[in-house]
Amino acid sequence: MSRRILYGKNTPLSFQESLFFDTDCPYTVRYKELRNDDVAPLHYSSALEVLLCCDISGTVTIEERTIPVCGDAVVAIPPYAVHSVTLKQGEGRVYVVHVSLEELRAFMDIPFFLSRTGARLDGLCGVCPDFDGVRGCVMELIERDGDLFARMGALLRLAGILQRCADREENPSVGRRGEGSDRLKAVVTWASANFREKVSVADAAAVAGLSKNYFCSWFRRHAGTTWNDYLNDVRISNACRVLAKTGSVTRACQECGFADLSWFIQLFRKKRGRTPRQYVKSLEAT
Amino acid sequence: MSRRILYGKNTPLSFQESLFFDTDCPYTVRYKELRNDDVAPLHYSSALEVLLCCDISGTVTIEERTIPVCGDAVVAIPPYAVHSVTLKQGEGRVYVVHVSLEELRAFMDIPFFLSRTGARLDGLCGVCPDFDGVRGCVMELIERDGDLFARMGALLRLAGILQRCADREENPSVGRRGEGSDRLKAVVTWASANFREKVSVADAAAVAGLSKNYFCSWFRRHAGTTWNDYLNDVRISNACRVLAKTGSVTRACQECGFADLSWFIQLFRKKRGRTPRQYVKSLEAT
Repeated sequence: MSRRILYGKNTPLSFQESLFFDTDCPYTVRYKELRNDDVAPLHYSSALEVLLCCDISGTVTIEERTIPVCGDAVVAIPPYAVHSVTLKQGEGRVYVVHVSLEELRAFMDIPFFLSRTGARLDGLCGVCPDFDGVRGCVMELIERDGDLFARMGALLRLAGILQRCADREENPSVGRRGEGSDRLKAVVTWASANFREKVSVADAAAVAGLSKNYFCSWFRRHAGTTWNDYLNDVRISNACRVLAKTGSVTRACQECGFADLSWFIQLFRKKRGRTPRQYVKSLEAT
Repeated sequence: MSRRILYGKNTPLSFQESLFFDTDCPYTVRYKELRNDDVAPLHYSSALEVLLCCDISGTVTIEERTIPVCGDAVVAIPPYAVHSVTLKQGEGRVYVVHVSLEELRAFMDIPFFLSRTGARLDGLCGVCPDFDGVRGCVMELIERDGDLFARMGALLRLAGILQRCADREENPSVGRRGEGSDRLKAVVTWASANFREKVSVADAAAVAGLSKNYFCSWFRRHAGTTWNDYLNDVRISNACRVLAKTGSVTRACQECGFADLSWFIQLFRKKRGRTPRQYVKSLEAT
């Protein structure tokens, strides 16, 4: 299997993504089944992200906007847009395409294509109604991975489909709302680096350059969730990762900034609908 | 109609082609019907050329190699390869695709694609057996000219098809036979600039840096035709252009280096199977 095609069981991705792209691998397609809830707390990356959701129930929040996902749907997330994804456990599956437009530039320059059609990269944002079209491109990316011309052609088609449904009324572009987005990125980045420690609201507010009192309402407005809930999401997502890797509930608790084991288990059950132990078992079963 | 899609009735192209490419027009597709013989004497250009021949009889000579064309066929000619094309009058039609890989680079870098698959640009040379595949790409270039993503995708598919049939046994690459090609280009370029004047074999030999005696056999071996025949082809092709533009047989004779009107008419009839006057009438009829 090539580096471009990834099968993640249901280990959730977390926050600020570390994606490794190069000329040989300027994009990835990750296939996930949803044996458990899949929660990616607020995060962003330098890649264009496309979610091909098949038979899914959940929500995608891109900057301030929450998009409900039900059944089959395609959601596009432009580079550097802060977003979170919550997909419910079920029979569904999701294909996550990440495209590094920078690395892809050696082959083709998608932002230049967009500029020539009068579209903006920021405009590739939100629901794309052409599910079948996007599905065809994603399948070709997977099935014709061995053929450079074919897979790059599929990527170009995908960009063309997204461009056609960009800038529609119901898909307002991101990044047009001033400095809120930069502040949010600063906080998200800081939280990604510090969730293992004891983190106070005052610290987060300082990172955002806001007063402690104003910070909470500001964060909620821009992130679509409370600061505490967001921090818990980051910690639980990382705990899932530790659990998938080590199977140890104690380690997951300690390594992800939870002061107390019973609180960790209680929160995990609330967020994931099962205990950490049950979660580990569900992974072993697959 | 866009600048990229051209309908040349059957005005023959001639010698060193002056093609005008820019970012908006990094390639052209020219559709020609063959109401008359279509003869393009030895020439070259900086563009990759693809001939989609439908129901055609003729020959394409690329550097030393003569390729018979019969019925449906695709012939690829790499940039800077000296070549000539002779297509017989008939019911057939030909689509000539010229691609400026330099101008195209703003969108996508075909030579980089090729290098990543281990192919060479020089290898895109000769007959490509996937007629239907190439035909599909050319039709898409024409029919979806208004859709940047679609037409660039078609161009990428076309390159992929050519790459797949490159480097096959029966298609030895050009440009691997040393300095013969550069000399030939020098002579062809010089002839293109000077055919309107009285041109001697000694002058041409001097341009090639060869003795007058050796020049004739050398030219024949590398060009697949004699020097005199080549010069006549250049002059007659240009005469056709003048005839198509002005309808004047006298001007065509004078402007294309023919000292004598009756010799011009005689040669024209030999080369094109009809007199200059009949040729003008055949153009008017269409």
